Amino acid sequence: MKKNKYLDQLGRKAKVASESIAKLTEEKKNKILNDYIQEIKKNKKKILNANALDIKRAKIKKIKENIIERSVLTNDRIELIIKSIKEVIKLKDPTKRIISSWKRPNGLMIQKITMPIGVIGVIYEARPNVTADISILCFKSGNCVILRGGTEAFYSNTILSNLFRNVLKKNKINPNCVQLINKTSRDHVDYLLSNMQSYIDVIVPRGGKSLVKKVLDLSKIPVIGHLEGLCHTYVDSDAPIEMSKKIILNAKLRRTSICGATETLLIHKKVLRTHLIPILNLLSKNQCKIIGDRLVKKYFTNTILATEQDWRTEYLDSIISVKVVNSIEDAISHIKKYGTNHTEAIITQNLKNAQKFLEEVNSSIVMHNTSTQFADGYEFGFGAEVGISTNKLHPRGPVGLEQLTTYKYIVKGNGQIRA
Amino acid sequence: MKKNKYLDQLGRKAKVASESIAKLTEEKKNKILNDYIQEIKKNKKKILNANALDIKRAKIKKIKENIIERSVLTNDRIELIIKSIKEVIKLKDPTKRIISSWKRPNGLMIQKITMPIGVIGVIYEARPNVTADISILCFKSGNCVILRGGTEAFYSNTILSNLFRNVLKKNKINPNCVQLINKTSRDHVDYLLSNMQSYIDVIVPRGGKSLVKKVLDLSKIPVIGHLEGLCHTYVDSDAPIEMSKKIILNAKLRRTSICGATETLLIHKKVLRTHLIPILNLLSKNQCKIIGDRLVKKYFTNTILATEQDWRTEYLDSIISVKVVNSIEDAISHIKKYGTNHTEAIITQNLKNAQKFLEEVNSSIVMHNTSTQFADGYEFGFGAEVGISTNKLHPRGPVGLEQLTTYKYIVKGNGQIRA
Repeated sequence: MKKNKYLDQLGRKAKVASESIAKLTEEKKNKILNDYIQEIKKNKKKILNANALDIKRAKIKKIKENIIERSVLTNDRIELIIKSIKEVIKLKDPTKRIISSWKRPNGLMIQKITMPIGVIGVIYEARPNVTADISILCFKSGNCVILRGGTEAFYSNTILSNLFRNVLKKNKINPNCVQLINKTSRDHVDYLLSNMQSYIDVIVPRGGKSLVKKVLDLSKIPVIGHLEGLCHTYVDSDAPIEMSKKIILNAKLRRTSICGATETLLIHKKVLRTHLIPILNLLSKNQCKIIGDRLVKKYFTNTILATEQDWRTEYLDSIISVKVVNSIEDAISHIKKYGTNHTEAIITQNLKNAQKFLEEVNSSIVMHNTSTQFADGYEFGFGAEVGISTNKLHPRGPVGLEQLTTYKYIVKGNGQIRA
Repeated sequence: MKKNKYLDQLGRKAKVASESIAKLTEEKKNKILNDYIQEIKKNKKKILNANALDIKRAKIKKIKENIIERSVLTNDRIELIIKSIKEVIKLKDPTKRIISSWKRPNGLMIQKITMPIGVIGVIYEARPNVTADISILCFKSGNCVILRGGTEAFYSNTILSNLFRNVLKKNKINPNCVQLINKTSRDHVDYLLSNMQSYIDVIVPRGGKSLVKKVLDLSKIPVIGHLEGLCHTYVDSDAPIEMSKKIILNAKLRRTSICGATETLLIHKKVLRTHLIPILNLLSKNQCKIIGDRLVKKYFTNTILATEQDWRTEYLDSIISVKVVNSIEDAISHIKKYGTNHTEAIITQNLKNAQKFLEEVNSSIVMHNTSTQFADGYEFGFGAEVGISTNKLHPRGPVGLEQLTTYKYIVKGNGQIRA
C-alpha cells in the first residue's frame, strides 16, 4: 500500500501527544473536561449550524432516513453530551492505580500499576455524540484518540473535536490528544488498519456488522469490540411466569437495535402450556414477529417456521426466534453452538439450575432473572462506555474508563542480581 | 488456503475437550499432575530413548550444535521437568475467582469472575521440556492446548505429550486437553495461524525472532508474546559505583541469550570518569564486546564505534552497546525511540530520578536498582511462565498461570428490567 503521509503524520503527532497526556493530574483533566462543557455551551449555535449542513448534504445524497435521524443534533441531544461529560468528570482517574504489590524473598518489591493504553483509533458511523463521548473517555483515561467518523456527520464531528482541541490549546496541552481524520475517502480506513500499527495501540469499531467485519478482517492492530450480539434468554422449567413475561418483553422490545437485545428465546418443554403462549401473546401484541420451531408453531399458530439460519440471525428488529428445549443442557448446547459470546440470561427459581447456567455459559456477560438489555457500561456502573467487547483477552464485556487502561510492573531493588 | 481436515479436526476436538476441562476441580487437576509425575518417572527410559532418536536424526541432518544441545534430555533435565510440575501443583487454581463484585442501585448484583481462555495454540522451537511446561500450565488454568513443537524434538515431544494424554485417559478425562500436531510440514503452521480462529483463542509463539515475526505477520488469532527484548539499563548521575558494576555484569552476561538480558547501557555524562571505565573494564574482562558512541570510545579505547543500527539490535550475545546521555530525559527519550517495551532499569540513589524513570518509561517491566534478567515469571513469583508479553492489552509482562485466564461478568437479578 502506498505511504499515506497525512495519516502517518497524524500517527506521529498522537504518539508525541500521548507522552504529555499520561502525565496530567486528575484535577487538570477534570478542569479541561469542565472547560469543554463551557466551550460546547458557548458554541451551541455553531454546532447546530454545522449539523444542519450535514443533514442538508445527507438529504441531497439521499442517505437513508434512519441514518439521517441518528445524525441530527438538537438542543436536547447537546444537553445529553454535556451530561455525559459531567458523568465522566465524576469517575475516578483509572490510571496510576496499584492493582497489586508483593515482596519477593530476595527483597525485590513488585507493583502492578495501571497506565493508559496509548493511542486509540476509533472508527464509527453516524451519531456525532460519539465524537464527544469517545474523546472524553479516552482523555480521562490518559489516551490519545484518532477519530474516523462517518461522512454523514462530518461537519458535526469536525466542530465537536475542534472545540475539544481549542480547550486543550487554551490549557497549554498538546491538542493532538484528539485528532479527527478530515478526509472522507475509504482508503484512509484501510491504511489506518493495515499500516499504522506502530502508532496506534488499539482499534475500536463502533457501527454495524459490515463495519466491524471489515475492521476485524483488515486490522493488524488489536481490535476491541464485537461482531454480533446474538443474545439468548432461556426460560427454565422453574421460571416464574409473571417475571418471565416482564423480562422477555423488555429483553426483546425495549430497544431492538442494540447489541444486548435478546434475539432467541429458549423455553423448557415443561412450561410450554403455562408460559409459552402468554409470553408470545404479549410479544405479538407489541408488534413482535414470532419465528419458531415446529413445536412452537403447534402451540402458537401465528408463528413463522424457523430455518437453521434463524438461529444464527441477529435481527436487531421486532422479530424473535423461539425454540423449545428438553433440558437446561440442551439450552446451554444451543447457546454454545449459535451464541456470539455477548450476553445470555436464564430465568428460573431453581438456584441449582441458575448456578449451572452461570458457570457453564462463558459469554462475556451471563445473567440470572434479568434482562439482557442491561448489557451496558452505564448500567454496570462504569459511567459511560466505548462499547462491548466479546474478546477473550482483556478488555471483555462493557468497555468503560477502567477498561481503557493497561498495566506495567514496577520492580524496586537495592542491588539484587539474578543467580 | 485448502481445507486441512487433520487440523480442523484437532481444533474441533480441543473445543469439545475445553468444555470438560473447565469443570474440573483443583483437587482433580492436581491429582492428574501428580499422576503425570509418576508416569514420567515410570517411562524415563522410553523418554530418553525417544530423545536419543531425535538427537541422532538431528546430527544426520546437520542441525546446528547449539540447537542440538538444547534438545538433549538427560536424567537431570527430566528431574527439572518434574520439579516444574511440582511447582505448578503448589500454585492456586486461577479460575473461578471473584475479581470484584458490586451491587447496583436497582439491586442487580454483578460479579467479575475468572475463567479459562479456552484453547491455546503454542508454536515453539527445540527444548522438549517446553512440551511438559506448557501443557501443565494450560491444564492447571483449565485451558486446552494444541502444541506444535520443533522437528528437532519431534519424538521427545510426542512421548511427553502422549504420557500426559495417557494420564488423562486413566483419569477418565478427555485426552484432547493436550494435543500435539504430529505432522512436521510448515504448511500446518500457516494453516493454524490463518484458518483456525474459530477453534483457537490465543497463539503463544516461543522461539527466535523469525518464528515470532512469522506468527505476528500471519496470525488471525490474538498473539501473546514479544518480538524482541531490547532491554536498557541506565546508570544515572547518582548511581553507586559498586552496585552499578554488579548489576550490569549480571544484566548483560548472566545469560546472554534470554530476552531480559540488557543490550544497551545508557550512562550519564557526569559519571563518565568514575563509572564508565570500571564498568566497561569488568565487562571486557568477562569477554563482552563493547560497542559505543564517540565519547565512549574516547574514554575506553577498546570500543567499536556504534552505528545507528546498533541501538536497534538485540544481540543475544556477549556484546553491549553503550551510549552517553546528557540527562535522565535523554535516557528516557532513547528508550522510547529504540526500546521494545520489554524491560528497562535505572540505577540511582536519587529517588526523584528513580520515580521519574519508573513513571515515564512504559515498558511492560520497569526496574530500579536491579538486574533486567529478573524479567521472568518464576522470579516474579508466578511459579512458571509461558513467556513474556509486550502486548498493550492483557496479558502483559510475565505470562504465568493467572495470565492464562480471562473473565466474565455474572449479573444476578430478581426480575429487574431496563428503563
